[in-house]
Amino acid sequence: MNKPKIGVVMGSDSDMPVMEESIKILEKFAIPYEVSVASAHRTPKRVKDYAETASNRGLAVIIAGAGGSAHLAGVIASETVLPVIGVPIDSSPLNGIDSLLSTVQMPGGVPVAAMSIGKAGAKNAAIFALEILAVQDKELENKLKAFRSEMEQKVSKANKKIQTNVDT
Amino acid sequence: MNKPKIGVVMGSDSDMPVMEESIKILEKFAIPYEVSVASAHRTPKRVKDYAETASNRGLAVIIAGAGGSAHLAGVIASETVLPVIGVPIDSSPLNGIDSLLSTVQMPGGVPVAAMSIGKAGAKNAAIFALEILAVQDKELENKLKAFRSEMEQKVSKANKKIQTNVDT
Amino acid sequence: MNKPKIGVVMGSDSDMPVMEESIKILEKFAIPYEVSVASAHRTPKRVKDYAETASNRGLAVIIAGAGGSAHLAGVIASETVLPVIGVPIDSSPLNGIDSLLSTVQMPGGVPVAAMSIGKAGAKNAAIFALEILAVQDKELENKLKAFRSEMEQKVSKANKKIQTNVDT
Amino acid sequence: MNKPKIGVVMGSDSDMPVMEESIKILEKFAIPYEVSVASAHRTPKRVKDYAETASNRGLAVIIAGAGGSAHLAGVIASETVLPVIGVPIDSSPLNGIDSLLSTVQMPGGVPVAAMSIGKAGAKNAAIFALEILAVQDKELENKLKAFRSEMEQKVSKANKKIQTNVDT
Amino acid sequence: MNKPKIGVVMGSDSDMPVMEESIKILEKFAIPYEVSVASAHRTPKRVKDYAETASNRGLAVIIAGAGGSAHLAGVIASETVLPVIGVPIDSSPLNGIDSLLSTVQMPGGVPVAAMSIGKAGAKNAAIFALEILAVQDKELENKLKAFRSEMEQKVSKANKKIQTNVDT
Amino acid sequence: MNKPKIGVVMGSDSDMPVMEESIKILEKFAIPYEVSVASAHRTPKRVKDYAETASNRGLAVIIAGAGGSAHLAGVIASETVLPVIGVPIDSSPLNGIDSLLSTVQMPGGVPVAAMSIGKAGAKNAAIFALEILAVQDKELENKLKAFRSEMEQKVSKANKKIQTNVDT
Amino acid sequence: MNKPKIGVVMGSDSDMPVMEESIKILEKFAIPYEVSVASAHRTPKRVKDYAETASNRGLAVIIAGAGGSAHLAGVIASETVLPVIGVPIDSSPLNGIDSLLSTVQMPGGVPVAAMSIGKAGAKNAAIFALEILAVQDKELENKLKAFRSEMEQKVSKANKKIQTNVDT
Amino acid sequence: MNKPKIGVVMGSDSDMPVMEESIKILEKFAIPYEVSVASAHRTPKRVKDYAETASNRGLAVIIAGAGGSAHLAGVIASETVLPVIGVPIDSSPLNGIDSLLSTVQMPGGVPVAAMSIGKAGAKNAAIFALEILAVQDKELENKLKAFRSEMEQKVSKANKKIQTNVDT
Repeated sequence: MNKPKIGVVMGSDSDMPVMEESIKILEKFAIPYEVSVASAHRTPKRVKDYAETASNRGLAVIIAGAGGSAHLAGVIASETVLPVIGVPIDSSPLNGIDSLLSTVQMPGGVPVAAMSIGKAGAKNAAIFALEILAVQDKELENKLKAFRSEMEQKVSKANKKIQTNVDT
Repeated sequence: MNKPKIGVVMGSDSDMPVMEESIKILEKFAIPYEVSVASAHRTPKRVKDYAETASNRGLAVIIAGAGGSAHLAGVIASETVLPVIGVPIDSSPLNGIDSLLSTVQMPGGVPVAAMSIGKAGAKNAAIFALEILAVQDKELENKLKAFRSEMEQKVSKANKKIQTNVDT
Repeated sequence: MNKPKIGVVMGSDSDMPVMEESIKILEKFAIPYEVSVASAHRTPKRVKDYAETASNRGLAVIIAGAGGSAHLAGVIASETVLPVIGVPIDSSPLNGIDSLLSTVQMPGGVPVAAMSIGKAGAKNAAIFALEILAVQDKELENKLKAFRSEMEQKVSKANKKIQTNVDT
Repeated sequence: MNKPKIGVVMGSDSDMPVMEESIKILEKFAIPYEVSVASAHRTPKRVKDYAETASNRGLAVIIAGAGGSAHLAGVIASETVLPVIGVPIDSSPLNGIDSLLSTVQMPGGVPVAAMSIGKAGAKNAAIFALEILAVQDKELENKLKAFRSEMEQKVSKANKKIQTNVDT
Repeated sequence: MNKPKIGVVMGSDSDMPVMEESIKILEKFAIPYEVSVASAHRTPKRVKDYAETASNRGLAVIIAGAGGSAHLAGVIASETVLPVIGVPIDSSPLNGIDSLLSTVQMPGGVPVAAMSIGKAGAKNAAIFALEILAVQDKELENKLKAFRSEMEQKVSKANKKIQTNVDT
Repeated sequence: MNKPKIGVVMGSDSDMPVMEESIKILEKFAIPYEVSVASAHRTPKRVKDYAETASNRGLAVIIAGAGGSAHLAGVIASETVLPVIGVPIDSSPLNGIDSLLSTVQMPGGVPVAAMSIGKAGAKNAAIFALEILAVQDKELENKLKAFRSEMEQKVSKANKKIQTNVDT
Repeated sequence: MNKPKIGVVMGSDSDMPVMEESIKILEKFAIPYEVSVASAHRTPKRVKDYAETASNRGLAVIIAGAGGSAHLAGVIASETVLPVIGVPIDSSPLNGIDSLLSTVQMPGGVPVAAMSIGKAGAKNAAIFALEILAVQDKELENKLKAFRSEMEQKVSKANKKIQTNVDT
Repeated sequence: MNKPKIGVVMGSDSDMPVMEESIKILEKFAIPYEVSVASAHRTPKRVKDYAETASNRGLAVIIAGAGGSAHLAGVIASETVLPVIGVPIDSSPLNGIDSLLSTVQMPGGVPVAAMSIGKAGAKNAAIFALEILAVQDKELENKLKAFRSEMEQKVSKANKKIQTNVDT
């Protein structure tokens, strides 16, 4: 019955196929989290309440994914000093360059940590959130190192498979 | 002692050299207005209060200018159904393409009317605000038409001057 | 038998799948409107006549959607002081960045209010037109507020559904 | 007292430092031309009249230079079947990419011939206009070939000078 | 057995689905033309020979379509003073922005007339070529005007159809 | 004699005018830090050693600023599970869009937290690093909240000053 | 049993459909090569070892393909003075412009030779590698010339086929 | 009296301030080279002759710098199987993105090795040319390694200097 440590918010439920990459990582590491839909533009009060209460509710890091004029991460960051990670989602015709610039080009004073556009960014947002928690959690740090080793081994396998295919 | 009809808001006082193009137009047309500095990220409460009370304070249109991840117009639009006009300001290294996309690519449901980047946009924001007021104000409509004639005459003069220079 | 208040124009009938997002909103709010096809480049006279007579025919706001070198909104704006809203349509290989820049980067003096690219922009153009009318129409203002509440509730439902899916 | 064959139009007299590159070429080749200022947005009637009467006034080619949402060339092209050459001018913060896309991305049916952004484009617009006239004018064709030889010789000289500098 | 007046060249036969928009127009206007495949990079000699002999073979205008680093139009323009029209083709992952910039940003002295990216550009290239020929051919000028009227009528029909659909 | 908690690395000493915005913040908050110059391309071993030993040397967060093909943050992130924050620097002709994309578009598995381009990003990188430390440090969290209040007051003052200037 | 002369490395096995264009060329020219998967971010040690030992293992040229923040070629180039050729892969939502800029915008001192985005680039990387070997290998130079002739003949055939289709 | 091994060509003598970065490197390594001005568009014959005779004149590598629609490197590559290195120069209003795409997006079959935009690219072009020569020249390979060490030491010094400044 652990209280959520990481909050995953998205601007619309249509962003779920991207943001579930964050959830998969959090599940894999068994870190308690919560998932919400809240739109900076359609539900500003919900976003404000979410951000203002986040720290007291026990959240340590917030992950916010949005597309187009992606203001969600920035608006949350304006209401809390918790680290806020932004995931730009490629849901508009511009392939996510609009979401990326809306997320990353924050003015001096109120940072948002931007990840890459789309699924890779959603996955990395969760890993980065874990890296933040791991600053004070040696066990988690070790798990992250083990995860890196796993990735290394996958690349190693892919390498072997490709060499076999090429040689044959 | 007229109550302001048009609110001009900017994210930082460093945006004033751009936004004073709005003010010049409002002065020229003698429309009561107010000018404020309020940052979506550094002063979210001020922005929220501004937007929530705007209609009751008598504002009819809001002009919001901001640079970088320009969330100001969008955040204001999320708190009011007054028409919100966004002026993207070219204050980051990316020459305003970031501000433009952050301003214009709003999700379905919460519109922001984007103007061109920089001074031309600030001027047009004020003219567009007047066009909105003129929908119910025949006198103002006529003034706007007269303003168009003025512009026409300026182009006409420029045309004559250039032809003289070229012929000589 | 109400006279149209809002004119929806598009550069080609192939833009209809995008522009019907405007029409859906106008239908929902039961605001009288008219729909036309008129190309700034292929039918300049039709566009000029449309724009010149718009005010006298009772139109209060014009919504113009076009792709590529999207000149339609700007050309209409040059012939009227009614508020003109531009919807950039992503019909060229450049995904709408050409239409956006052609629509939004108007010179000082003749504003066009640019919306986001594609369907979200067409929807928002109609909502923004309603916001303009609502400046002098308390009932419409209230309807727009109710529409915002509807959106809020949809997000709220989406939020609950996602949380349920995640918890299960 | 030759009647102008080539019309040079620009959206604003501030475009003159760019467009005089066209004039220099026309002077050099002693082709009769006219220069005008006419804005698609601020003086639509002037532009329309200009374009509609161009052929009867004896113009064979029109060169139109404009910045930002550069509609001038497209609007002229919509009113005439004379060849229209567009020069995108880098007068907005976006360095001319907006003018280029507004000029070049014309819909099927109404062509504009876009040149490069800024001074090189203004120069080339005049040369291209001459190439059009030369299709039926052997003498002009030969002058254009001579002009090419001149350019070749300039490059040749530059080449020698650089080699000398390097060897020394 | 008319000698070709207009040359249509493309960098690869895979560009044919785009460039046949040029051919359709030339067929419609019954202007004699020739079609070739010649690559600036893979067959420089073929391109050079093509360009050098073009004028003597009776060509009046050359249309060149290419994708990626689209050098074809520029290379042809370097070998002839005939008007060269460039069609940027969207065959690389960058959607044609590379072809557009490679085609349009020619240095002062050697112009290429760039059309819009893809099919619309190929169609317009042929129309523009006809406009060049029409400078000295009143009959062709009239045909081009008739073509404009046809387009106007198509828009008119589309307009009526849409209005009917909307009213029903 | 506190051991550094935050490492600030830059690709070249010419990046110092940008990166000193990070240092100013760290000085203001009196957090022990270290500053290094290390280039991913010119000194790969130095970068590798830096990253590999960072955690054992007591660093909790690494801030990496670089321009052009900005690989520094990504290369460091590949060698450590400490949170790595990337600052894209606008030192190439492309105004930093190259550095931004090189920094932010990391593949799934190895995150870098990208900040805005240039000085605002360098300032925010340090604030974000502090937010990370504050997750476990209530006192620092309060200092960050006080810093927000300071910013709020500055905006408030700017607001008053502008209103006075406008009213006078 | 020849030792590999050319190393082909890719950041992920999902890049294989692009990179096999390199392999096809190397097979066609019967140049001994090796193929590996190694990620700059997920397997930095593997990449470092690969690059450091490349010259001693007999490699003369390295071809590195990667997508997104494509650091692979740059990281390899930092560890060897062998020529490194980078292939930007369009695997992120941004169509490869991110990979291109990450690959090509290397700082002064450590070059990477960038090829075009995607399959054309992978093919060209192998040809360019052969051109490097051919600097000291007259026979290979002749084979490359023959390959050019083959290409010429293909274009020639395509040309004939299209002319036949058009004439019929 | 060594015969040039490396040819440096630029499209205009105004490119010399950029291209002399190539020359500085070649001087430093005492590799015989030649410098030429030749424009793909203004002097196609000069470029063709240059490329065709390059191999027989003893050149091993060609470096070609150009701005705007930068065709120079591609046109040279079409005439020789020597390795051709392209340097995109930021001489147009678009900051070199046009030159980069014109240089790098070559079609499959005829590679150009693109370097970074501007001075860094000119420097790297020369280093890359040396890396090509070093494939068969152990002494040069060692010089290149020594050059890397020099760079390392410069970074090391910069690192020390910055740390001193910060500590004081």
